[in-house]
Amino acid sequence: MSELTLYTYFRSSSAYRVRIALALKGLTFEPRYIHLLHGGGENWRPDYLALNPQGLVPTLLHGQRILIQSLAILEYLEEAWPDPPLLPADARDRAYVRSLAGIIACDIQPLNNLRVLDYLKQTLDMDKAQTEAWYRHWIAEGLAAVETLLNRHAQAGRCCFADMPTIADICLVPQFYNAIRYKCDLAPYPTAEKIYENCSALTAFKTAAPENQGDKE
Amino acid sequence: MSELTLYTYFRSSSAYRVRIALALKGLTFEPRYIHLLHGGGENWRPDYLALNPQGLVPTLLHGQRILIQSLAILEYLEEAWPDPPLLPADARDRAYVRSLAGIIACDIQPLNNLRVLDYLKQTLDMDKAQTEAWYRHWIAEGLAAVETLLNRHAQAGRCCFADMPTIADICLVPQFYNAIRYKCDLAPYPTAEKIYENCSALTAFKTAAPENQGDKE
Repeated sequence: MSELTLYTYFRSSSAYRVRIALALKGLTFEPRYIHLLHGGGENWRPDYLALNPQGLVPTLLHGQRILIQSLAILEYLEEAWPDPPLLPADARDRAYVRSLAGIIACDIQPLNNLRVLDYLKQTLDMDKAQTEAWYRHWIAEGLAAVETLLNRHAQAGRCCFADMPTIADICLVPQFYNAIRYKCDLAPYPTAEKIYENCSALTAFKTAAPENQGDKE
Repeated sequence: MSELTLYTYFRSSSAYRVRIALALKGLTFEPRYIHLLHGGGENWRPDYLALNPQGLVPTLLHGQRILIQSLAILEYLEEAWPDPPLLPADARDRAYVRSLAGIIACDIQPLNNLRVLDYLKQTLDMDKAQTEAWYRHWIAEGLAAVETLLNRHAQAGRCCFADMPTIADICLVPQFYNAIRYKCDLAPYPTAEKIYENCSALTAFKTAAPENQGDKE
């Protein structure tokens, strides 16, 4: 039995990030499926809230240690299992990679997750067209900045940083996957799109993809 | 002249975070004031967008290196100037501290920043009461999770982690400061509030506070 247990939902892009990192590190885990829609959201059950008080996925258990917040989990995996690295060696390059991850993990995804879309629909009475426009707006804002940085720094290769999969790609791929699912116009982001395609073809990214999870629908 | 230049706005909680970290590390910087409201927002000027394609503050220049995204900047400062540390030594404790920072920096602040409030008002035609309810809702959601974690882990002392100011406090204090400004009910978060008060009284946090900036109004 694995010492790692991941509470995951196939469509959660934050859980998808952690699945990619685990796969890149060659770590196996016991999945526990938390369906965010069934029964009003399994993530709101008391036994799950006892692990994760935000009621968000993912949660990673490492032995008795409970880990939440995907960026914090990625940094933890990097520190606990340094090989292969998910960050470059140089502090300035690490900052660059983390800034790309931050644009996505702070300024795109949290605006578009289920709890926010529910608030728009239920509390603010927004219709489908308005919530979809909201969703696409923040993706467009964030991906435009990512694309500009990728081209400006000219450090991209097959991945955001040279040919090395880092936490930038780990955040980019699930976000791009969602953008495609929501039929966003991706033509303005050719560099990001090429990186998405390159990374998605790697075994670790495939293993972690929503369609390859035990709870996919 | 300092080798560090910080593009900052006194009221930006992300800039406030970086100002605290710089002060804790004992680093001096040249401030460049970017007013987010004057002239339609100085952050949208081409010369600022050339530094920060998101048009957000802060941006930190270290020599020729341009650093954006406050969490990435905090990690950079920690790597480039390790003393005094802003993260505990143990990987599991670091993950805990980073998860508290993540709740605030990913799941509260980005939902409540100026660009989002503008979208609610201008694109979705929300009135003042609705935008204020939105603002308070996400603060309440996030701070409730922070409070639960602080009490559950029982690692808090004068700060979120024992008596050591970390990136968790660096994120908590500006968020709490804003919550007070927006007249949020803070009674449900007594542990967080005590930490806010303890940290706010420290010299580094005072130096970094909005009311002590050159661009305060």
